[in-house]
Amino acid sequence: MKQPTPTKIPGFVIRFAEETDVPLILRFIKGLAEYEKLSHDVTATEDLLRETLFGKRQVAEVIIGEYHGDAAAFALFFHNYSTFLGRPGIYLEDLFVKPEMRGHGFGKVLLTYLARLATERDCGRVEWAVLDWNEPAIRFYKKLGAAAMDEWTVFRLTGEALTTLAAEF
Amino acid sequence: MKQPTPTKIPGFVIRFAEETDVPLILRFIKGLAEYEKLSHDVTATEDLLRETLFGKRQVAEVIIGEYHGDAAAFALFFHNYSTFLGRPGIYLEDLFVKPEMRGHGFGKVLLTYLARLATERDCGRVEWAVLDWNEPAIRFYKKLGAAAMDEWTVFRLTGEALTTLAAEF
Repeated sequence: MKQPTPTKIPGFVIRFAEETDVPLILRFIKGLAEYEKLSHDVTATEDLLRETLFGKRQVAEVIIGEYHGDAAAFALFFHNYSTFLGRPGIYLEDLFVKPEMRGHGFGKVLLTYLARLATERDCGRVEWAVLDWNEPAIRFYKKLGAAAMDEWTVFRLTGEALTTLAAEF
Repeated sequence: MKQPTPTKIPGFVIRFAEETDVPLILRFIKGLAEYEKLSHDVTATEDLLRETLFGKRQVAEVIIGEYHGDAAAFALFFHNYSTFLGRPGIYLEDLFVKPEMRGHGFGKVLLTYLARLATERDCGRVEWAVLDWNEPAIRFYKKLGAAAMDEWTVFRLTGEALTTLAAEF
């Protein structure tokens, strides 16, 4: 097990998740979905997380923030790629701080840690998506110097539309 | 070298790019940037592409569409991850058909190939971003059954804002 990394906040450390953290990760995912009013969209299970995050083909990485030994926050990220820069980037898929653990600055420290990791790994960017109604988050991100990619919209092919198109090949 | 995959369009095959394709890939990237009126943002070089696409840590994959032996189109993609599904997805970063090669349906075949690849790799989604003014593309994607993630905005931390935040950790 790797040593946790201390942060500027006394008592708050960051560590990379391990397979035994799967139940904790699923609780974090469900907590975030609830906050985003998207609980009905969660079909992830412990088995799926175990297989996709800690199995043969690891696509994403998870870090966990602990406050005096208590899991307080988590972030799940993976590497994306910018063709314009010719470099990978870090894409932050989820960042969540337990409601009762807010107000300490844990979210900002996790983001700062990922920015540091991005520079260490020679990545050109850190990116993430935010729901348009989440104004406190948007204000926070802009204060950090992040730019809103307003002129782009993500399109998603999933479920039946995906299998239908796949069958056309 | 892997065999190219035939498609429904006579004479059009799809193959995975190799290191010797780096100059071709850079020309495709620059062609797309020109179309998007973003040429000034391209800082990728052949060396960077060689290192990041074919070096030790391969983040992204490239497929090339050839029409009667001529490179006609390309797509660059990587795996993203959905915490709600507990599965990876395919994120299509770039898809570009040479202007003189349009109108044959090559773009749709590449997208169909990626949909097939997504189901083969047990991925839950294929996603990509489109510029809001690109109405022909948007109509095309909607006809395929893709949904616009209208309520989300991507935030990007890059350049000085990224190094400044990284230094704060």
